[in-house]
Amino acid sequence: MDIDILIKNGLILHFDKETQTESIAISNGKILEIGKNLDRKYQANRIIEAENKIVIPGFVNTHTHAAMSYFKGLADDLPLHEWLSQHIWPAEAKFLSPEFVEDASLYGCAEMIKNGITCFNDMYFFGDQTAKSAEKVGIRAVLGEGVLDFSAANHKNADEILSLINEMHQKYLDNQLIDFAVAPHSIYTCGKANLIKARDLANKLGLLVHIHISEAKQEIEDSLTKNGVRPVEYLHSFGFFEGDTIAAHAIWLDEEEKLILAETNTSVAINISSNLKLACGFMSLKNYIDKGINLSIGTDSVASNNNLSIFQEMSLISKLQKSINEDPTLLPAKDILQIATLGGAKALGKSNMIGSLETGKRADIILVDVQNIQAQPLYDPFSQLVYSLNSENIKDVIVNGKIVMLDRILVNIDELELIEKAKYYQNIIKKFNNG
Amino acid sequence: MDIDILIKNGLILHFDKETQTESIAISNGKILEIGKNLDRKYQANRIIEAENKIVIPGFVNTHTHAAMSYFKGLADDLPLHEWLSQHIWPAEAKFLSPEFVEDASLYGCAEMIKNGITCFNDMYFFGDQTAKSAEKVGIRAVLGEGVLDFSAANHKNADEILSLINEMHQKYLDNQLIDFAVAPHSIYTCGKANLIKARDLANKLGLLVHIHISEAKQEIEDSLTKNGVRPVEYLHSFGFFEGDTIAAHAIWLDEEEKLILAETNTSVAINISSNLKLACGFMSLKNYIDKGINLSIGTDSVASNNNLSIFQEMSLISKLQKSINEDPTLLPAKDILQIATLGGAKALGKSNMIGSLETGKRADIILVDVQNIQAQPLYDPFSQLVYSLNSENIKDVIVNGKIVMLDRILVNIDELELIEKAKYYQNIIKKFNNG
Repeated sequence: MDIDILIKNGLILHFDKETQTESIAISNGKILEIGKNLDRKYQANRIIEAENKIVIPGFVNTHTHAAMSYFKGLADDLPLHEWLSQHIWPAEAKFLSPEFVEDASLYGCAEMIKNGITCFNDMYFFGDQTAKSAEKVGIRAVLGEGVLDFSAANHKNADEILSLINEMHQKYLDNQLIDFAVAPHSIYTCGKANLIKARDLANKLGLLVHIHISEAKQEIEDSLTKNGVRPVEYLHSFGFFEGDTIAAHAIWLDEEEKLILAETNTSVAINISSNLKLACGFMSLKNYIDKGINLSIGTDSVASNNNLSIFQEMSLISKLQKSINEDPTLLPAKDILQIATLGGAKALGKSNMIGSLETGKRADIILVDVQNIQAQPLYDPFSQLVYSLNSENIKDVIVNGKIVMLDRILVNIDELELIEKAKYYQNIIKKFNNG
Repeated sequence: MDIDILIKNGLILHFDKETQTESIAISNGKILEIGKNLDRKYQANRIIEAENKIVIPGFVNTHTHAAMSYFKGLADDLPLHEWLSQHIWPAEAKFLSPEFVEDASLYGCAEMIKNGITCFNDMYFFGDQTAKSAEKVGIRAVLGEGVLDFSAANHKNADEILSLINEMHQKYLDNQLIDFAVAPHSIYTCGKANLIKARDLANKLGLLVHIHISEAKQEIEDSLTKNGVRPVEYLHSFGFFEGDTIAAHAIWLDEEEKLILAETNTSVAINISSNLKLACGFMSLKNYIDKGINLSIGTDSVASNNNLSIFQEMSLISKLQKSINEDPTLLPAKDILQIATLGGAKALGKSNMIGSLETGKRADIILVDVQNIQAQPLYDPFSQLVYSLNSENIKDVIVNGKIVMLDRILVNIDELELIEKAKYYQNIIKKFNNG
């Protein structure tokens, strides 16, 4: 039988059974079979030799802003408000346009593939432009269009944006890579009326809702003052969580709020690097895990992270949680890898499609080289992935059954062109930021 | 004038003046001149084109155990005592030999160069074997020979080891790369008599003392019970800090203890990754900085880290400190880069020799490529190094005026041979560990 791709003799990582050397047959975008000696059974158009490689599901990045790529490192080591009000917001106000979002998203999508991210959950504006770029790079995306009470970027008010989401959703209905989501920015930028409208539209169209919750301590104070209750309780009071929801950050939750997330099957996108760097703080995840809240990993944008390495996030989350809880057995390597893949897929309502290497799932796969000094000796592949390796070790990336990176070279776009365009934008942004 | 190497037109990072495109002339192991148009002035045997590269001083790793390389990932996500007593100590007892230490150290030195570390401060046994390996790879090293009350590895008692340190020191007196140090392991493995002997020998020979202090909370309890005072106070009570000292970890210090370290000019080696992973905890560094304690960065060994990326350590320290102290301006990128280089050099008493790019200093230099997606756009090189880049971006490494890595290939040793030997040891260690 003819197939598209055969990943031959790699160390295939499963969450539910022993790791062993196997092959993966890929056809029509899907994993057709995982097993031994598949080269005898199938005739592959393309064989990827995977000796000395660990093969894992692609990373799912559940909170980012791809179009902020050109703001990476624009202004660091500053208080949140100064960073936003004096650097990021003015730059956005000046430069945001469909063209800018398309270019910056293309860069962001390329950088994600380089980091083994095969699916990302975005929140920004001009989602149709980001869709174009994601398709060009060949990455899977859920594009949350930002909903705000006030006018910004591509819309005068929330109603306009909700109608745009509906349009984009219809347009991409049959697209295998692109989904849209409804992304009310937060409770401090979006009032109850628009939050409810956002939820209703999402439920009507079967879309995900993506929102920032309790990233900064101040939000709790403000919500208590304004709403009389904490942010999650406030949202819950009008049924906001009745439907698929990703809560990005969700740092400052009390017990009651965590119970609400657990009961409503709301997923959390942990954004540890960004949170630490902006001094937003960090939570103990033990309680979240014990309550059965689905956890996933977000990078946030490169404007606050400032990189897109899921390896960094996994290692940081796992190690920090061990120390906070004084328990080195907490979040072992296998668990955090599962959070970075299957946890993300669950958060996006796509765990039947992606997030693990299983027959019938879409082939979103990354191959990690271990024939190098950093990766050896290799006792346990999970441990090595989480604690020892980094994105440089990711050699090949497959999304939806198509190779998008081979031996660290992006297949669908010219990296030098991307870099030159980034330098062009940097020059004009820098001039504006300094003046 | 003839020179050995010219680093041509790189972005040269200085701590005390503006970054600009300059060249570096290297001769006789030293930085002869830094400036513009040096290619017109000097005839170089070797030119390294540094366009699109950031040029910084090599990283100084102030706490590691290079010979533990083969235990990387042997047993993770375990409580400290179980990890040590059931995995690491038995493996050490079984395998430690001069040959093992030489092989494992060679691997460790190679991995350090790959991570841009040009000088490391080690603590282990068989330092003369590690010296051979460090010379072979071409890395600068301060080799602390472990001092214990009981017999271990290469010695029956502390007196034997002290006399060995003396011998090794005399043997390598004229060696430009290798220094020895006296490394009483800790207050719980080394009694007062031997701690004093260690200090005395160090002072007599002009060597550094390197010791683990307050890595685990339990050490404080134990010291209070046994000595009536906390660890640093105990050591101070008999003049242990009267001479150059590096305190590795130094997490659990009270105000009085921090004052003692500041007053005695004792340097701290921060080992954040290892500490978090083993659930030892973390300290707020603000207080250390305010008191003027010299800070430096250690990786600890790959058995607990599990990698040797100083980029990871810098990013993690800086970001974690911002959140702990609720101050995003704390430990900005430039400061943490200085801690990773000049701070380390100071800790080793070598700041007149290495740690920054200055005329007359030894040429310990790394070149970091920024012509790649991860590194662009590039607004601020310090920020990019600390928050965005990783070891993969380090292309070339020079130690003592000699190129030891070029375009990520080690110059002095065969990487494939290293990897094969690591796999050989892994097999026998794994068999022993499992059975």
